[in-house]
Amino acid sequence: MKKIEEYVRSIPDFPEKGIIFRDITTVLQDPEGFHLAVDEMNKLLEGVDYDSIVGIDSRGFIFGAALAYMNNKAFVPARKPGKLPCDTITEEYDLEYGSAKLQMHTDSIKPGQKVVIVDDLVATAGTVKAAVNLVERLGGEVAKVIFLIELQGLNGREKLSGYDMDAVIKYEGK
Amino acid sequence: MKKIEEYVRSIPDFPEKGIIFRDITTVLQDPEGFHLAVDEMNKLLEGVDYDSIVGIDSRGFIFGAALAYMNNKAFVPARKPGKLPCDTITEEYDLEYGSAKLQMHTDSIKPGQKVVIVDDLVATAGTVKAAVNLVERLGGEVAKVIFLIELQGLNGREKLSGYDMDAVIKYEGK
Repeated sequence: MKKIEEYVRSIPDFPEKGIIFRDITTVLQDPEGFHLAVDEMNKLLEGVDYDSIVGIDSRGFIFGAALAYMNNKAFVPARKPGKLPCDTITEEYDLEYGSAKLQMHTDSIKPGQKVVIVDDLVATAGTVKAAVNLVERLGGEVAKVIFLIELQGLNGREKLSGYDMDAVIKYEGK
Repeated sequence: MKKIEEYVRSIPDFPEKGIIFRDITTVLQDPEGFHLAVDEMNKLLEGVDYDSIVGIDSRGFIFGAALAYMNNKAFVPARKPGKLPCDTITEEYDLEYGSAKLQMHTDSIKPGQKVVIVDDLVATAGTVKAAVNLVERLGGEVAKVIFLIELQGLNGREKLSGYDMDAVIKYEGK
């Protein structure tokens, strides 16, 4: 059986020289790869007590929704601005150039609910930290933050210090 | 047990007068609602022979990924432009004002593969018809097209005539 790492497509010098882009679509488009990825992420949730999964727009939806379904949990999308039709709260976060925003519906998490946050990949952790802040502003408790891939060279783990976080595949570089 | 329709939040006169916006986040954020929605969509796939599920960016990812995981199928994202890192093909389609584009990786479907296309909602069917065209340009065969919600007043079914399509919830209006 292939290991999960072998399904990832690595693209050197994309989008710029020195960066290796990790493409997960090759994981998804293989039935065994996708199933294995979700199962390995689910192992990271063993023993974790939680009510909802927050998936981050939009690749976090893919893994987060499969995990929510198989575990009979709620699924809450954390979305780019302007996509949610009812009352929202917003967090702004820094990108390499400029900034971006993430939103959640104000009624998507009830105070006291325990939440797992899911995304495909963590790099600098700017986006996921915005999701953590949104969950906490709604009174939720972040039970764990999980990823398929962690790029360890970008120190996302530091930005999430104090939170239980883990990833299935860890690359040393950027 | 609540019926699936009861989990949908209907917002009158949004985004403009006379339109009832159907918000599915209330389906997702209830564990029973989300599970029921996926199970009801899965019933639409009984007896359908297929290899891959194409989910449409980005709410189609939520249902498509859960369905692909539970049925041990591949998951292929059909994405807004500029999101896929490798070679893509593009379809342009009309919106009420202007146009939009949808892309897939050229290697995401192999010639002869049978494909189910999934989205949360069908209105005019412009986006899903673009996904149908992408699948066929890659040599795939569209086995079925399914939705959680169909807005029957917008004639999406006409644009998809000749294809096997179905939805769990059918609203008569727009």
